[in-house]
Amino acid sequence: MKLPGQGDFESSDAHENAHSEEPDSGLGPGPGLNGPSGIDIGESQVSKDPLLFIQLNELLGWPQALEWRETGRWLLFEEKLDMGAGRWSAPHVPTLELPSLQKLRSLLAEGIVLLDCQAQSLLELVEQVVSGESLSPELRGQLQALLLQRPQHHIQTMGIRPCRESNAFRKASRDEDAPLKHQNPLRQKLPAGAEAAAVLAGELGFLEQPLGAFVRLRNPIVLEPLTEMILPSRFFCLLLGPPTLGRSYHEMGRAAAVLLSDPQFQWSVRRASHLPDLLAALDAFLQEVTALPPGRWDRTARIPPPKYLPSQHKRFPSKLQEVTSLSRQSAALAEDKHHHGPHTPIPELQRTGRLFGGLIQDVRRKACWYTSDFLDALHPQCFSAVFYIYLATVTNAITFGGLLGDATEGAQGVLESFLGTAVAGAAFCLMAGQPLTILSSTGPVLVFERLLFSFSRDYSLDYLPFRLWVGIWVAAFCLALVATEASLLVRYFTRFTEEGFCALISLIFIYDAMGKMLNLIRAYPIQRPGSSAYGCFCQYPGTGGNTSEWTSAKLKDTEDILSVPGLVNASFLPPPECIRQGGHPLGPSCHTVPDIAFFSLLLFFTSFLCAIALKHIKNSRFFPSVVRKVLGDFSSVLAILLGCGLDAFLGLATPKLLVPTEFKPTLSGRGWLVSPFGANPWWLSVAAALPALLLSILIFMDQQITAVILNRAEYRLQKGAGFHLDLFCVAVLMLFTSALGLPWYVSATVISLAHIDSLRRESKACIPGEAPNFLGIREQRLTGLVVFVLTGVSIFLAPVLKFVKRVQLLLMPRKHQPDMLLLRHVPLSRVHLFTAIQLACLGLLWVVKSTPAAIVFPLMLLGLVAIRKALEWVFSPQELLWLDELMPEEEETIPENRSEPEHLFSGNDSEDSELMYQPKAPEINISVN
Amino acid sequence: MKLPGQGDFESSDAHENAHSEEPDSGLGPGPGLNGPSGIDIGESQVSKDPLLFIQLNELLGWPQALEWRETGRWLLFEEKLDMGAGRWSAPHVPTLELPSLQKLRSLLAEGIVLLDCQAQSLLELVEQVVSGESLSPELRGQLQALLLQRPQHHIQTMGIRPCRESNAFRKASRDEDAPLKHQNPLRQKLPAGAEAAAVLAGELGFLEQPLGAFVRLRNPIVLEPLTEMILPSRFFCLLLGPPTLGRSYHEMGRAAAVLLSDPQFQWSVRRASHLPDLLAALDAFLQEVTALPPGRWDRTARIPPPKYLPSQHKRFPSKLQEVTSLSRQSAALAEDKHHHGPHTPIPELQRTGRLFGGLIQDVRRKACWYTSDFLDALHPQCFSAVFYIYLATVTNAITFGGLLGDATEGAQGVLESFLGTAVAGAAFCLMAGQPLTILSSTGPVLVFERLLFSFSRDYSLDYLPFRLWVGIWVAAFCLALVATEASLLVRYFTRFTEEGFCALISLIFIYDAMGKMLNLIRAYPIQRPGSSAYGCFCQYPGTGGNTSEWTSAKLKDTEDILSVPGLVNASFLPPPECIRQGGHPLGPSCHTVPDIAFFSLLLFFTSFLCAIALKHIKNSRFFPSVVRKVLGDFSSVLAILLGCGLDAFLGLATPKLLVPTEFKPTLSGRGWLVSPFGANPWWLSVAAALPALLLSILIFMDQQITAVILNRAEYRLQKGAGFHLDLFCVAVLMLFTSALGLPWYVSATVISLAHIDSLRRESKACIPGEAPNFLGIREQRLTGLVVFVLTGVSIFLAPVLKFVKRVQLLLMPRKHQPDMLLLRHVPLSRVHLFTAIQLACLGLLWVVKSTPAAIVFPLMLLGLVAIRKALEWVFSPQELLWLDELMPEEEETIPENRSEPEHLFSGNDSEDSELMYQPKAPEINISVN
Repeated sequence: MKLPGQGDFESSDAHENAHSEEPDSGLGPGPGLNGPSGIDIGESQVSKDPLLFIQLNELLGWPQALEWRETGRWLLFEEKLDMGAGRWSAPHVPTLELPSLQKLRSLLAEGIVLLDCQAQSLLELVEQVVSGESLSPELRGQLQALLLQRPQHHIQTMGIRPCRESNAFRKASRDEDAPLKHQNPLRQKLPAGAEAAAVLAGELGFLEQPLGAFVRLRNPIVLEPLTEMILPSRFFCLLLGPPTLGRSYHEMGRAAAVLLSDPQFQWSVRRASHLPDLLAALDAFLQEVTALPPGRWDRTARIPPPKYLPSQHKRFPSKLQEVTSLSRQSAALAEDKHHHGPHTPIPELQRTGRLFGGLIQDVRRKACWYTSDFLDALHPQCFSAVFYIYLATVTNAITFGGLLGDATEGAQGVLESFLGTAVAGAAFCLMAGQPLTILSSTGPVLVFERLLFSFSRDYSLDYLPFRLWVGIWVAAFCLALVATEASLLVRYFTRFTEEGFCALISLIFIYDAMGKMLNLIRAYPIQRPGSSAYGCFCQYPGTGGNTSEWTSAKLKDTEDILSVPGLVNASFLPPPECIRQGGHPLGPSCHTVPDIAFFSLLLFFTSFLCAIALKHIKNSRFFPSVVRKVLGDFSSVLAILLGCGLDAFLGLATPKLLVPTEFKPTLSGRGWLVSPFGANPWWLSVAAALPALLLSILIFMDQQITAVILNRAEYRLQKGAGFHLDLFCVAVLMLFTSALGLPWYVSATVISLAHIDSLRRESKACIPGEAPNFLGIREQRLTGLVVFVLTGVSIFLAPVLKFVKRVQLLLMPRKHQPDMLLLRHVPLSRVHLFTAIQLACLGLLWVVKSTPAAIVFPLMLLGLVAIRKALEWVFSPQELLWLDELMPEEEETIPENRSEPEHLFSGNDSEDSELMYQPKAPEINISVN
Repeated sequence: MKLPGQGDFESSDAHENAHSEEPDSGLGPGPGLNGPSGIDIGESQVSKDPLLFIQLNELLGWPQALEWRETGRWLLFEEKLDMGAGRWSAPHVPTLELPSLQKLRSLLAEGIVLLDCQAQSLLELVEQVVSGESLSPELRGQLQALLLQRPQHHIQTMGIRPCRESNAFRKASRDEDAPLKHQNPLRQKLPAGAEAAAVLAGELGFLEQPLGAFVRLRNPIVLEPLTEMILPSRFFCLLLGPPTLGRSYHEMGRAAAVLLSDPQFQWSVRRASHLPDLLAALDAFLQEVTALPPGRWDRTARIPPPKYLPSQHKRFPSKLQEVTSLSRQSAALAEDKHHHGPHTPIPELQRTGRLFGGLIQDVRRKACWYTSDFLDALHPQCFSAVFYIYLATVTNAITFGGLLGDATEGAQGVLESFLGTAVAGAAFCLMAGQPLTILSSTGPVLVFERLLFSFSRDYSLDYLPFRLWVGIWVAAFCLALVATEASLLVRYFTRFTEEGFCALISLIFIYDAMGKMLNLIRAYPIQRPGSSAYGCFCQYPGTGGNTSEWTSAKLKDTEDILSVPGLVNASFLPPPECIRQGGHPLGPSCHTVPDIAFFSLLLFFTSFLCAIALKHIKNSRFFPSVVRKVLGDFSSVLAILLGCGLDAFLGLATPKLLVPTEFKPTLSGRGWLVSPFGANPWWLSVAAALPALLLSILIFMDQQITAVILNRAEYRLQKGAGFHLDLFCVAVLMLFTSALGLPWYVSATVISLAHIDSLRRESKACIPGEAPNFLGIREQRLTGLVVFVLTGVSIFLAPVLKFVKRVQLLLMPRKHQPDMLLLRHVPLSRVHLFTAIQLACLGLLWVVKSTPAAIVFPLMLLGLVAIRKALEWVFSPQELLWLDELMPEEEETIPENRSEPEHLFSGNDSEDSELMYQPKAPEINISVN
């Protein structure tokens, strides 16, 4: 008998032995990576071994009423039977007692090990096992009968009906002949070809010495009553012994089951040819065990399954270290970061060096996917995505059409907003390089347009023709950018720039919302007691008009009339009614409407808080996940509906959005086509080039930052990006929308991410405790197209859309939580310094935006990139790697610098690399509208 | 060489060996329980071994720049140096690689072990260690120089100044001669007599074979440069070897440090006399290790320290099982549950069988503590407790005095509320059995009084005299209850009854708050457009009065006058001003005040949400803990101040609490003493016995449920309870308050718990990662007394207390979260059934309370106990044990039934018992006001 670590600790023969059959293992993972856990590694490494379902049957009730009972089951994680509660525990990481592993090893070493057993049935199997033991014939018979006894299984139907579930359990466990297969929800989750393993453990009073057996069946057979599921069993393990103190057989049974659930051990034991191989596999397992010291950790705590399984790369550390040099290791690390890292250069960004070379490449690349872009959309998931994104888009169009666009001479009117969104969005979805992008007229471009409008008003310019020329120039500049492949510059847009830009957008939204709210309070002032007298009545001119008319029955019965006959000809009619009757309202409070300001504030708060609360429900523990998802996803819409409902219920005269009833431009007197000059002098069309230059910078940055975020490696897009093509489309649409006096459109980050998120493909058949695997995005053009077509149709539904105005003001994107891994590597002070610089930049941007110099703020945005460049003087490349990401030049020079200090001094490199290996599935956690 | 588990697994010699020196170990914990972790066990088990601080110095920078660096430190948990970030990690549970433990064992077995080394300095120590190795003289010199090299320590000052902290670190680690002691905040946390251990590990190129040494110093010496703190070192461990792949020496060093940090290992190794003892201790450690299988758990995750350390009882499982039979084990379990369980019978509840026997015993028991009840209050913590509870009490007095007491003919008026609270509360604190109790006039007794009042109004009774007689009868009944030791019945108040009762109180509060809010909207109606005309002007009678008077300059410049000369004599003065000027207001809107309803609603929501938000801050990650605690504790007060501030800022005519300016009863025309008969017939004084009977039941239950909760074992009160004495005091106060027409007082659960919580004593010198130990409550009479004296003084501050009314309406106690351990044992359906029955009871109580039969609802409350008794027909005793607790009779019959199935069938008993052993420190998580 041999134990791990015995003798010289430099060499571990056992370990070597266990892997002796293993095929080549360069950097790739070994073939022991089974089932779903293998998916992480990549398609090429699909394992051959079937998934193993392991069940522990325990012998209970000694000495009175012996019975077998299923007390645990394993796929990747452990599920225990909570007997009192009559249900399976949540899946958790199994923990073992080290001695039980060692006892198991001794028992197996002394017991019967049958590899490639030929048994065809449970009876045969039991006979073979029992005959191997040195027992008296009587005992042998007793044992055999016991082993053939039907165990009690616990079948739990899933779902949300706890009471019936409990009954179903009782019935199922009593009704022993019922076909269990149809009731077992776990069965349906297992992939085809899955096999079972049965571990039988317990204490048996008539045994005098422990009895261990391990059987691998040559051809798996269905050991029907043994396992809860009708699966062919490959392994059979028996661990019996005389009663001992403690629960050692239970723990040994668990240890055996956990061993079998380990992909590495399973791989070895499937290929073992004799006992030493089995023991060697066990020793290899022991070598990799993590030990928790006693007394510092509560053994009864059930560790929840990790969000990401540790990479199976790490299961071959000694191998790796033998065949690869340190430099190769770091190369592998770098490669891994390249594939999974959040900020990696995008392969589409290669310079061709020809005019429009990038555009042509984009078109070529996308052309071959064009058919599939429509065929791939034929999935029910796309319907819900359309519904979700449509609501977000329409909400946006209404908000910015009616609310924020007032100031731009109708170019952002309600009708223009809907029409422009529909036409531009649909066109973009049909032509663009990245059809998952959703266009929007909000954000910095809208801010710039408002500046442009106030400029043209200050200088008495004819706005729409001026705007047309700006648009023409912008289109020209953008075409030039496409021609010169300027989109390659996006490599300089690191997280620093992205965050500054996104924070500015958020701030603009929040500021506008607050400002509008305060304006409302100014428009509907609150009456303070004593501050001004109140009162208003309706005076009729002279004594003219029929006196009996206004003292008519209609008015009398409302008792609204002040009848001081002969003195005054007046009534208390409300002002509008008064005017209609030919009088005029007189008094200080005729023009104030009470209650409106506070009610609007109440609506503002309730709908905002309701939206926040519903969003939180998504991550709460109440309700089934479907309900939570719906409530969370539609939180804003539900909150708006609540606000509208409250408003409608009370019927107060709150200000409403004015929805046009005719299909004509908001600005009266103009046709759909904007006249090219209008009242402007001819040279203005040339001068428009200057603001157009600034706007081009803005559009380029807004468009490309969104594109960079969308095309990040973590979304695993297959069809490639189209930076040049997208910019080209934006340029064309710019021309079109300027000519018709519609809003200007650029890709919107938040809503596009929501779009992508609603199209996530995830693996279905998941093992209890395992998080579903992210498989990719349904890349297609149809969802976007349908959304915008629906938006177009909505124009005719306009009268329905008389939404309340202010409740739309809650559109405040939230920030993400800090990455805590960062804090392990960069001193907090440096992190704060970095953040402070970002905040200072933001403050500067905001100040510039608020001064008369506001019009140059696109230039300042460009300055962000320069400031980022200057940061290299302040921060080490090391720190920048963690805080931001590297700029292209740094990246070329850094690998040596980077790996050196990490390797020599860091006490944690093994930890970090583990975390780096984790496939970074995208997590989108932003509110859509 | 010998490894754990080798050979026969039935006996573990190694383990036996390790504990051979151990003194008696019956059921009590062994003496290996060191330092703070020993506090849990009880005062009698204070350990003798000093606390050990362990530091790992690693040799880094081979081959270029060798330097020692402190990379980890241990007290109970591990702190790693995050080198990049330049700070200590959060304390966490250490995890080890199993092979490193085994390699460490081999290295120690082959290396030098010096137990009771006589070295007097580091130099001597190093010389002794190095001379033991078989090295060439040259190597020996090199090694000695290396070992004497000063290591780099990382000193981190605590606090909230990250930037300066970082500088301090840089300075400290450079400035090698600075006395480190004064800068090291950890040093101040260590108890006197603490010792250090230094582990030195690393790879050294010129070594050809590994080099291990373990030294125990006979007299601990300060190895000054080695450890970051100037502590006498007891242990020294050296692990060096030629460079290997992986980080094996780092891991071995960690393994050695973790071993030394284990109390059990430390105990053994302090007493070891030769190498085998050391190895045996290591093997014993290995036997207790918990193994986490590879691949299912992220090794880099840092496990946060558990909230409660696992009990050290469990560290002697094999011993226990040898000396105790199973029956003794379960007896121990029961005993443990008795001491720590949440629902244990209180020892004071022993029947004496004599009239007033319980009361006499109570008085005797409390008398001997009376002096200490005042001396124990001399602690700064009591000041903050007084402040906190005073605010809560005053808030309560104002709320229920002004707000909910209107209906009771002044018996609950503002002045009565303050006066009664002060006098009754102070008297109770001076006399009562449980002086931690805070009296309150709210809750069910107030509900009953309102019913009583409406009854007396319906039958035209003189309320206060009637109330006096009810009070007299109640006092008499209560005295009878005291005489007959009826308080022993509290054993029947299980969690079922408590929860039903508390839920009812909460519901009454919330319902009242909502109702008041809705009444406000009715009182200040909202003007809908078109619903009624608005307008109001001030008409002067005839043309009398001097016309020039109201068109005087004073009025003219406000332009408030309607001057239609000769037609009408009117102005737009506000109604109150109008009346003062001799006119009368005319028009439909003269008596409606706009904006008040919505503004009140806004105040209601903002102060409620602000209070909730501030409460949440307490558990958030922002701000230092002191700020969070203050914000959380005073959340309600801050929210009220915010509401008042908003109201004052806008200056609207919201309804305010009317605070009396004179010291006289609220009901005009009565003196302080209530006349015994008033206008009532004489027989009413007899008839009052009937409602008094009901009220007595209510008072008895309300008082005793609170007392049971306060006297729960988990608060570890030392001075005993006084159920009989408390009830006696309540009876006397009943008489007093009835005679003066003051509110009736009973103990209030929530505020009393808050009082207890603010007086918690916790251990101070806590080890990083260890939660402070709960030591008990400062039991004294002074805090309560001062609170009520201050409340009395507040009467004279009344004019200051013109608080806004509605903002006080947020007094909604919250419910606790479910105990998840329960769900491991009882089917969910049964839990739901139990809850449903409770809810049905609550519904029934509510319905009864709302019908004309409301007056009998105290009887219904008593019915709760009966229903609970009936539940024994529906639920098994097993289930009731988990769901509720056992009634006295059940308890006597159950022990056998309970232990049998648990032991035979449960797969989890080891888990549960572990959880049962955890000392249940009280967690009070309720909002006070």
